[in-house]
Amino acid sequence: MAEYSNDRKLAAEFIGTAFLLATVVGSGIMAERLADGNVAIALLGNTIPTGAILVVLITMFGPISGAHFNPAVTLVFALRREIEAANAVWYVIFQITGGIVGVWIAHLMFDETLLQFSQKARTGGAQWFAEGVATFGLVITILATLKAREQAVAMAVGLYITAAYWFTASTSFANPAVTIARGFSDSFAGIRPIDVGAFVMAQIVGALIAYALARWLYSPAVVRQGQEQI
Amino acid sequence: MAEYSNDRKLAAEFIGTAFLLATVVGSGIMAERLADGNVAIALLGNTIPTGAILVVLITMFGPISGAHFNPAVTLVFALRREIEAANAVWYVIFQITGGIVGVWIAHLMFDETLLQFSQKARTGGAQWFAEGVATFGLVITILATLKAREQAVAMAVGLYITAAYWFTASTSFANPAVTIARGFSDSFAGIRPIDVGAFVMAQIVGALIAYALARWLYSPAVVRQGQEQI
Amino acid sequence: MAEYSNDRKLAAEFIGTAFLLATVVGSGIMAERLADGNVAIALLGNTIPTGAILVVLITMFGPISGAHFNPAVTLVFALRREIEAANAVWYVIFQITGGIVGVWIAHLMFDETLLQFSQKARTGGAQWFAEGVATFGLVITILATLKAREQAVAMAVGLYITAAYWFTASTSFANPAVTIARGFSDSFAGIRPIDVGAFVMAQIVGALIAYALARWLYSPAVVRQGQEQI
Amino acid sequence: MAEYSNDRKLAAEFIGTAFLLATVVGSGIMAERLADGNVAIALLGNTIPTGAILVVLITMFGPISGAHFNPAVTLVFALRREIEAANAVWYVIFQITGGIVGVWIAHLMFDETLLQFSQKARTGGAQWFAEGVATFGLVITILATLKAREQAVAMAVGLYITAAYWFTASTSFANPAVTIARGFSDSFAGIRPIDVGAFVMAQIVGALIAYALARWLYSPAVVRQGQEQI
Repeated sequence: MAEYSNDRKLAAEFIGTAFLLATVVGSGIMAERLADGNVAIALLGNTIPTGAILVVLITMFGPISGAHFNPAVTLVFALRREIEAANAVWYVIFQITGGIVGVWIAHLMFDETLLQFSQKARTGGAQWFAEGVATFGLVITILATLKAREQAVAMAVGLYITAAYWFTASTSFANPAVTIARGFSDSFAGIRPIDVGAFVMAQIVGALIAYALARWLYSPAVVRQGQEQI
Repeated sequence: MAEYSNDRKLAAEFIGTAFLLATVVGSGIMAERLADGNVAIALLGNTIPTGAILVVLITMFGPISGAHFNPAVTLVFALRREIEAANAVWYVIFQITGGIVGVWIAHLMFDETLLQFSQKARTGGAQWFAEGVATFGLVITILATLKAREQAVAMAVGLYITAAYWFTASTSFANPAVTIARGFSDSFAGIRPIDVGAFVMAQIVGALIAYALARWLYSPAVVRQGQEQI
Repeated sequence: MAEYSNDRKLAAEFIGTAFLLATVVGSGIMAERLADGNVAIALLGNTIPTGAILVVLITMFGPISGAHFNPAVTLVFALRREIEAANAVWYVIFQITGGIVGVWIAHLMFDETLLQFSQKARTGGAQWFAEGVATFGLVITILATLKAREQAVAMAVGLYITAAYWFTASTSFANPAVTIARGFSDSFAGIRPIDVGAFVMAQIVGALIAYALARWLYSPAVVRQGQEQI
Repeated sequence: MAEYSNDRKLAAEFIGTAFLLATVVGSGIMAERLADGNVAIALLGNTIPTGAILVVLITMFGPISGAHFNPAVTLVFALRREIEAANAVWYVIFQITGGIVGVWIAHLMFDETLLQFSQKARTGGAQWFAEGVATFGLVITILATLKAREQAVAMAVGLYITAAYWFTASTSFANPAVTIARGFSDSFAGIRPIDVGAFVMAQIVGALIAYALARWLYSPAVVRQGQEQI
């Protein structure tokens, strides 16, 4: 398989994260404008596009950069030594800047002020726990599906986030770059900048637990019964 | 293909069933809170995440444990001698406890009382018949798709449940572990503990009929016309 | 590949068509009961399950019977000599009876009177034209996808019907067995028995045009330019 | 793989674009009629069928004509010398006429006046920017997925448009043939004929930027670090 140069990898992470955020924030604005106050319909209009674009972006850019678009995912791959530490730092920088640019693209498309800061409070133990669960689930989905059937990762991540938007009280940010970027949008999808830090912390904890679980789950199995072997 | 140790299989059944229930109950709470009284919208917000997470979980954990997450399915595989009786009992124990833990995770994420008991009546002949049909359909889907195209099982089960949430009057529990666990949530997805027993009974009957049908359908075909052979 | 005996093929057509109708009618009843008068939401609640169950049923039963579940499809395969005329007649009989039994299963699950006749008028040139277009589209989808990528047929048919429920004024019956069976349900999905005949006629015309188009499209290409060959 | 004659390719482009427009306009009419004034629900009823039919049409006709259905896509393939200039012109002619015929088919099915002109204003910098972004995204999706996993193109395009209907303020026409044809429908999906030109211009700019990006992204990588090679 072709190996891409670093600038192409970083371009893929930048463009992918930008498109992801343009979708999350853009569909959030569209949904809120049209839903006539019914928040469940608005969330459907936010969920379906987000899940769909994730399948597309991971299919497209997976072969170039691995399609992380997510510092928590990059961290886990660095711990697994599947990406070098220096590269990982560059990945994270391009994910965060790409995410912010994606929010601005959404604002331009919807004729909104470019630079905004969200005023939507998202805080408290239940929300932090939800972010931990959401990110744990995302990372274990990626690691387990890579092991089980690599071609299914794009679909699995898209469907996982589709579910997680609804089963977590926080609507599953599950991604530090997404969380930071959504701080820059005072819309349906926003989060107050002051609430970003705790979300990111919870996400990293969830990711690390998933990393540890996957290590155990996929380490060479101890032979416990006669018929079981690796 | 790698064979996993028993503790890893049981972990997969536990985590998978927990995530399934966290999704069923969590998205049920989210949907009910947001849907402004329109139950059809709430059911869409419950259906789409449940179908999606099933595809993800079966893709992830299929290669480890077979991804049953369902005592009725484990029972059928035990009858087919594809899992040993002792293992099957352990599977069921971990499915039920995993399911209950998943409900509690949903309650924590949505800042609800941890321990609840549902007060939602789900009873009567029509509902029991619906559960029998739903579980019959689920088990025949699994057995037939395993035979037809194994890689499609995850997608088939997710889509089957997506449909069954709507075509059965009971919204298709179709799973004794799910039924027991939903007894522990006084929310959209709940069922009164007193109604659990009859649902489980109907599910087992449906599963057994599917088992018998599949035996006949896939047994060596009798040659009835000249051009037909096995 | 295994060749199944005729009784197994007919069982697959019967069970498949029954499940299809139980889904169409059952989800129609559920959707109408819950949608609080918003017909677009009800149609979403009818569309998503129908598309989903078609993917499941065709994946499951395709290898046994070809998963027609539709006399118009069986007619086309008979014209293409891919099924014998006598078998085709049996297929149609089992599809129609299976469809009616599926409607009755839905009625039982939703605690409705078993035997009903629809009072919903579906008639007029626009509707007949819509049924012709819908069935033309369904048959060309099947024939073209079988040629292009056989494993994609189940998904293609499910997605086609998902679209056709919305883009045709008749909500796309596109299937004589489905049309006859829906005459037996006085619910969201019903059609007056007196309107069934014209729908079936339009469906057969649409199917025959698709058959003819596919013959031309996939016949050995005439070499028209130097670089083009079969 | 079989190579199809030019008349078959043009027939595929014509039929495919006609079905695409019949779906876009037909589901738009259906959704607006049923949605009871809730535009978010109407857009869901327009989005899901459009995304679904794209997957079907590209799966079906991809092997025949490449399934462009879009002059901006044909332009890019002409620049990449994957289609001859003369053929490309014919493709565009058949796409545009197919699109208009598709709109008329939708009008016939819904018992509307055949010849209409939209009165819906869609203009201004934000909308033009949105069309540029939408078409950029569509073309890069096609080019990148063709490179990454050719069999996934149909699914990727369907899911991309599903997302783009919501994340762009213009609901993502992203296709000059679609834009022209929608000028001929005074319905939910319409656009004033006077606004068509600027949309098409923006679409072409977006397509050309995607073409240039893909050239750079997939050109032989410069070796920048020791371990990276093509």
